[in-house]
Amino acid sequence: MTYRLYYWDSIPGRGEFVRLALEDAGAPYVDVARQEDVGDVGTHAMLDLLDDAGTAFPPFAPPFLADGDLMISHVANILLYLGPRLHLAPSEEGARHFAHGLQLTLTDLLTEVHDTHHPVSVERYYEDQIEVAKQRSRAFLQHRLPKFLGYFERVLHTNPAGPQHAVGDKISYVDLSLLQVVAGLHYAFPKAMAGFAGRFPALAALHQRVAERPRLAAYLRSDRRLAFNQDGIFRHYPALDSAPDSVA
Amino acid sequence: MTYRLYYWDSIPGRGEFVRLALEDAGAPYVDVARQEDVGDVGTHAMLDLLDDAGTAFPPFAPPFLADGDLMISHVANILLYLGPRLHLAPSEEGARHFAHGLQLTLTDLLTEVHDTHHPVSVERYYEDQIEVAKQRSRAFLQHRLPKFLGYFERVLHTNPAGPQHAVGDKISYVDLSLLQVVAGLHYAFPKAMAGFAGRFPALAALHQRVAERPRLAAYLRSDRRLAFNQDGIFRHYPALDSAPDSVA
Repeated sequence: MTYRLYYWDSIPGRGEFVRLALEDAGAPYVDVARQEDVGDVGTHAMLDLLDDAGTAFPPFAPPFLADGDLMISHVANILLYLGPRLHLAPSEEGARHFAHGLQLTLTDLLTEVHDTHHPVSVERYYEDQIEVAKQRSRAFLQHRLPKFLGYFERVLHTNPAGPQHAVGDKISYVDLSLLQVVAGLHYAFPKAMAGFAGRFPALAALHQRVAERPRLAAYLRSDRRLAFNQDGIFRHYPALDSAPDSVA
Repeated sequence: MTYRLYYWDSIPGRGEFVRLALEDAGAPYVDVARQEDVGDVGTHAMLDLLDDAGTAFPPFAPPFLADGDLMISHVANILLYLGPRLHLAPSEEGARHFAHGLQLTLTDLLTEVHDTHHPVSVERYYEDQIEVAKQRSRAFLQHRLPKFLGYFERVLHTNPAGPQHAVGDKISYVDLSLLQVVAGLHYAFPKAMAGFAGRFPALAALHQRVAERPRLAAYLRSDRRLAFNQDGIFRHYPALDSAPDSVA
């Protein structure tokens, strides 16, 4: 069965977390909105589904995934569904719920990253809320980012199976998502992330190890991989970035 | 098995979404942090668990639920786990993922409600960010709230089983959560919610119907039910509220 992933065509954004799982597993999928607008693919096909009043299970927003007749919204929900199918989730129930909880914590982190550049309204440009964005970014880099990264570093250290994985002794979608988050943070906040590997060694090692997985490394070099850019969640605005020491 | 719910003792907050499910089902549970600080209950017991470096599956933040040795974090994840056990989730896989996706959309809405009064930093008081809070609230009430409420109204209308439930023809944790969200919005934004029943009739009817369920009605009248207050997610600050027409 070929999965159909629906997400905006020009940003890695939230869709990338699903792509990483599909690519690492070598699963067949169509990246619907990134195809030419013909027939049942292209951005219009995605927008049509969002507008379709006849859909039994209407999604609120991209990304969503179709697997045959099944339609699943929200990154964490999609990965919950794909995890066992792609052998990217632990099989034990407690560990599976733990992995899902970790993904939901990453979801919260992503929202906070997004809001560093859009603290007032998603309806307005960054340039129209830059002063507030500076305040929110300072608070994020000073209080929130260390809390999130410290938590995930601790999760790796306290994993009874060792710090190679977030959950258990095998790769999971959480490890793949951590790769993307760490990469995005380096892109958006290079000053704040200075010294990252020294402060969060297990996370830094995980990032490197996951990026070297053969199928994932090939994907990251391919033109299917979308670069971080100034329309996504992770954006590099120098005005919003500051070194850990200078954050106050 | 008696469930153990861990959440702050003085606000309905996110914990209330779990309480509603447990109460509607008549399930036995201990509201851990709301007990006197003795032995393995009380707020100290919750904080100890958050700090415990020896926990295999450490939670990031309350709420979390323990079921024997199982530990589950995040409201949507907890409801995903409890749903089938409390007969508050559809049994079919597609519907179950749809319910979970709806809960995750409610999670996003809650974050946006929270950020109306804390748009800059959770480390600072509302009073220190009131001007930005006014801006964010205006944008929220003008653009985001109608989008969210319109979506859930549409979900009810397009439910093939009828508009009595969000998913299928039976009560689910999504219906219970919608009750709490609608009640919270009325508390926080009475002006913005004026005319709610006329604009979102299916949601208003659902709210009323769910509140009349016998066990839930008894709970809502009991002293186990925490009132909305100015420390929770839904807070009533008149400066942040405005009638739909006057939002601009």
